[in-house]
Amino acid sequence: MKYNVTFMPDNQVVEVEKGTSLIKAASQAGIFIKSSCGGKGTCGACKVVVLEGEAQTDRTGNLTPEQLSRGVRLGCRTFVEDNLTVEVPPESRLQDHQVLLENNSSLLRESSKDLLSHYGFHPLARKVQVSCSEPSLTDNASDWARLSLEIKRTLQSEKPIKIPLSVMQTLPEALRKGNWNLSVTLSDLESEYTVIRVEPANSKPAFGLAIDIGTTTVVVYLVNLDNGEVIDKQGAYNKQAHFGDDVISRIVYAVESEESLKEMQNAVVESLNALIGDILKRQNLESSDLATAVISANTTMAQLFLGIDPRYIRLEPYIPTANWIPSVPAKEIGLNILPEGLIHTFPSVASYVGGDIVSGTLATDIANSEEIVLFIDIGTNGEIVLGNQDWLVSCACSAGPCFEGGGILFGMRAMPGAIERVVIDPETLDVSLKVIGRVPPVGICGSGLVDCLAKLREAGVIDRAGNFQMGHPSQSDRLRATDEDKEFVLSWAHQSGGDKDVVITENDVKNLIRAKGAIYAGIRSLLQTVAMEMEMIDRIIIGGGFGNYLNVHESVRIGLLPDLPHDKFEFFGNSSVKGAHLALLSRKAWKEAEELGRKMTYIELSIGNTFMDEFVSALFLPHTDLTLFPSIKE
Amino acid sequence: MKYNVTFMPDNQVVEVEKGTSLIKAASQAGIFIKSSCGGKGTCGACKVVVLEGEAQTDRTGNLTPEQLSRGVRLGCRTFVEDNLTVEVPPESRLQDHQVLLENNSSLLRESSKDLLSHYGFHPLARKVQVSCSEPSLTDNASDWARLSLEIKRTLQSEKPIKIPLSVMQTLPEALRKGNWNLSVTLSDLESEYTVIRVEPANSKPAFGLAIDIGTTTVVVYLVNLDNGEVIDKQGAYNKQAHFGDDVISRIVYAVESEESLKEMQNAVVESLNALIGDILKRQNLESSDLATAVISANTTMAQLFLGIDPRYIRLEPYIPTANWIPSVPAKEIGLNILPEGLIHTFPSVASYVGGDIVSGTLATDIANSEEIVLFIDIGTNGEIVLGNQDWLVSCACSAGPCFEGGGILFGMRAMPGAIERVVIDPETLDVSLKVIGRVPPVGICGSGLVDCLAKLREAGVIDRAGNFQMGHPSQSDRLRATDEDKEFVLSWAHQSGGDKDVVITENDVKNLIRAKGAIYAGIRSLLQTVAMEMEMIDRIIIGGGFGNYLNVHESVRIGLLPDLPHDKFEFFGNSSVKGAHLALLSRKAWKEAEELGRKMTYIELSIGNTFMDEFVSALFLPHTDLTLFPSIKE
Repeated sequence: MKYNVTFMPDNQVVEVEKGTSLIKAASQAGIFIKSSCGGKGTCGACKVVVLEGEAQTDRTGNLTPEQLSRGVRLGCRTFVEDNLTVEVPPESRLQDHQVLLENNSSLLRESSKDLLSHYGFHPLARKVQVSCSEPSLTDNASDWARLSLEIKRTLQSEKPIKIPLSVMQTLPEALRKGNWNLSVTLSDLESEYTVIRVEPANSKPAFGLAIDIGTTTVVVYLVNLDNGEVIDKQGAYNKQAHFGDDVISRIVYAVESEESLKEMQNAVVESLNALIGDILKRQNLESSDLATAVISANTTMAQLFLGIDPRYIRLEPYIPTANWIPSVPAKEIGLNILPEGLIHTFPSVASYVGGDIVSGTLATDIANSEEIVLFIDIGTNGEIVLGNQDWLVSCACSAGPCFEGGGILFGMRAMPGAIERVVIDPETLDVSLKVIGRVPPVGICGSGLVDCLAKLREAGVIDRAGNFQMGHPSQSDRLRATDEDKEFVLSWAHQSGGDKDVVITENDVKNLIRAKGAIYAGIRSLLQTVAMEMEMIDRIIIGGGFGNYLNVHESVRIGLLPDLPHDKFEFFGNSSVKGAHLALLSRKAWKEAEELGRKMTYIELSIGNTFMDEFVSALFLPHTDLTLFPSIKE
Repeated sequence: MKYNVTFMPDNQVVEVEKGTSLIKAASQAGIFIKSSCGGKGTCGACKVVVLEGEAQTDRTGNLTPEQLSRGVRLGCRTFVEDNLTVEVPPESRLQDHQVLLENNSSLLRESSKDLLSHYGFHPLARKVQVSCSEPSLTDNASDWARLSLEIKRTLQSEKPIKIPLSVMQTLPEALRKGNWNLSVTLSDLESEYTVIRVEPANSKPAFGLAIDIGTTTVVVYLVNLDNGEVIDKQGAYNKQAHFGDDVISRIVYAVESEESLKEMQNAVVESLNALIGDILKRQNLESSDLATAVISANTTMAQLFLGIDPRYIRLEPYIPTANWIPSVPAKEIGLNILPEGLIHTFPSVASYVGGDIVSGTLATDIANSEEIVLFIDIGTNGEIVLGNQDWLVSCACSAGPCFEGGGILFGMRAMPGAIERVVIDPETLDVSLKVIGRVPPVGICGSGLVDCLAKLREAGVIDRAGNFQMGHPSQSDRLRATDEDKEFVLSWAHQSGGDKDVVITENDVKNLIRAKGAIYAGIRSLLQTVAMEMEMIDRIIIGGGFGNYLNVHESVRIGLLPDLPHDKFEFFGNSSVKGAHLALLSRKAWKEAEELGRKMTYIELSIGNTFMDEFVSALFLPHTDLTLFPSIKE
């Protein structure tokens, strides 16, 4: 039995089986709805409004009777039993194709070019032109003997050359069509070449992909492997987001059945293939022109991408199936590049310090630094690396997805409509906002949240523990209590993009304090492990999509970042994709990444009380111990 | 539109699409019909009789009006347009599951054991028991790090250990189900181990297959990789035989379209999978217990098995796609063993000296012999290797499939009903026969044909050129002319198994003379290349299913084998499968095979006039130059 569901205001109609959840139906219509709890009906992020028709709902979470009477439902727990018309309000949407790419492209170029000269340009795949002699009765070597000999001559290399069967099957025709002149695409690894494509000679270069699979977003760079240039780039949401916001809810969903693991793998592969398809179309290329891909991802994302059961990542003692991941031909994953092209996945360090951090460590070049560097990647989780050329320690501190907008009522990513700066008059609590794209605000992004937290404290709206001060002298109606929570109105409905008051709630504030506290506690714990003081850090590098927009001053004020001279801080943007770009272009860099995966010491914060003590102390603004923040005391 | 076809006397009914050829319909009914021309309607081997119903025929070849009126049709050129009843006479049938295996199993055991002690027991795949420590928060190495470390410890080896993604996907569950004790199956190659299966610890050994893919027959040996024992063996016809008798007609069929290449590949893979299925059932094993397979095949059979277009093998200058063949996981071919288990295919030397000859050269140990050895493999083709520990030359001499019964009107393989010895009274031309299985004769096998040729000549039925002497003084009615040919009756219909006179025709005799002439000319040409005399050969080893039954005396009399002391001759049976068995059990032997493929010099007999001159001289019984056969002059 099938029904039509019309999604508004998009006016997109899809036909779905009876019993399909609205969140799935919307996904089929190309509309992506937020969800943090993996479809359990507890997070309330997936609110939709059923305008017409009868839908069956088995859970309503904390929807109010008023909301229910208006047709508001949880998209994950509401199922199609009729033809429906359903509104998906802006705050419930994941806006697709709006993911921030590295927009400081000169920085990227500088940094990867610099590193490249250190490691040398030697891409993981390449295309070479090979001219073979024509065979005769007296020179009757086989096609492959003829070709492999010429490849060795051309490359002046004694490395073994392999060829998979599927490529060998195309060899006789290609050789004769090309009149014994071939373009040969090779995987170029440490110990061997593998011929992954043979074509009649042509001048098209080979291309590669640098891919960052984040829990929330995926980013693809198209790179010309002849000269290392980034030709195109595109980002999008990870379609796994339907199954939950963070790695834990993804794991919970993935282990429900073999199908759900497959479903999770398909979701991320489809996310990537959609981006690849767009890029290929734009650049007028074929998927077979893409000779390799380097994947940077956290441990859970990597295992899901590879179809490896992630359940033991979540269960104590938190054991990943593998830190070192074998390189696999794309055909085994279904990634839409050359079928025999290798997919190289960055090794991880532990279940919660993944390949994205190894990639970032490679890109930031910490392992070759004389100075002591602290590298913080603020993504959906929060991972920290500390060290220099002699030693490296790392940890993960479960910051949660706040700074990417997750778990925050009006949280969103840094895109048009996101509040990024807040000014609050301490007397009247009047607000002025800076909104990305200078449009009416619809939500708050990470940097806006940091600013907001600092300003709410400064204006006395919250105390040092984040409690709302309802008796604020201003008596402003911006500060109000609802049935569910206390909240502060940043933008009234009539001035907003979503026809709703944009607010920050006490719950949001507590979440933010926990997130910033976790990161600060992580830094402190890591320092204790190596018996160092905060002042001994020479440089602090901040990565993650959120990084570039962060205001150091405000971040220190709320106790997210340590109170050190501002010139020690450096923003690095998407360090994960930058490392992938670098590895793609340099076999030596890739080898270094493999070594980094082995040599970085992982500190498990759940052992002992250090982290928990630090965390509890950090649940204040900026901290329980104000001596740690001398600049704020002043 | 579908019709039923009933095959008699089997009384097997199949439903087929309109337009299906009778040869294909029969194959669906499990009845295999001979064919030498690849379905072109020229060889006349596939005669069937349409008893009921209307069939459409587009070619009748050299069927007589009398035959046509009796309903005789060519199975390949007759198509289903109605419900039919069709008789398949015995002489048109390939009898399945009757292929001769190596029946001198003690010889096999001796010889491979001897060689094994030379190369050392070191199978290409093995199973090891590995106990891992249980992880904890303080010992949180990944599953794979834990396992690979223990494998290295267990094997005391520093070789790299790889694991394909599909096996890694099964690792977390196997480790925990086995309580950290695993049975690990490994591919054990020169440069690396690959983990191809992980299971909770158990005591079942790993098994391997030694496989001989002949043009006519396929043979599978099941080998216990723990101790090297052959546990079971089975042979059958190569189902490709439907598409033609010899490699040329197979190639012609295979290159018609991409589908026909696929069809040819499927035919041989299905032939093997059927055998494997029988063996597994008999031995109560699973396909995943089969950890590897070594394939010995001629160049065309190897390319067809691997799905590589064989067309350039047939076209001058006769170039194979590859002599060295990459080892491929079974899943890429569809062979029913462990999906990641490697299929190792013997390298070939040239288009017409294939991996079967390299395998035979390995098994006969020529490359380690101080004596000069001549190795002749008399199969569907005729290949010759000459040499010792210092040098090896080889050639192929297009003998054709006569000695396997192909191209001979009543030719058949050595199985019950086959005439193997003939006595002809020179005066009366009365005949007495020795028939395999002591049953009424239905045809003549290779050794019977050699004997018959010698006896026909001795009795004066044929002259030295093979012409029938119709004026033979006996005036026996056994010697007679038909509309098509002259023939000699070996067994009258009422004494035969097939209700027909079993005859040998002048055409058969000419074919046999060409075949024996080609082999002798090949030997002479090869000797000339290295400027040697026949007498300098120390040992002659004869391989091929036919070999064991050959009578040296008669073979010399017809000029098939050189006139040398009989104690120089040695019969080796199926040298191809023996070499595969040996390689399966010894990595060093496999490596030697790879080197043999490179170091054996191939002599192309079609260059220059040497071979042609020798061939023409050899088209007499025993030869034009009787000084070459001193023992016969006596």
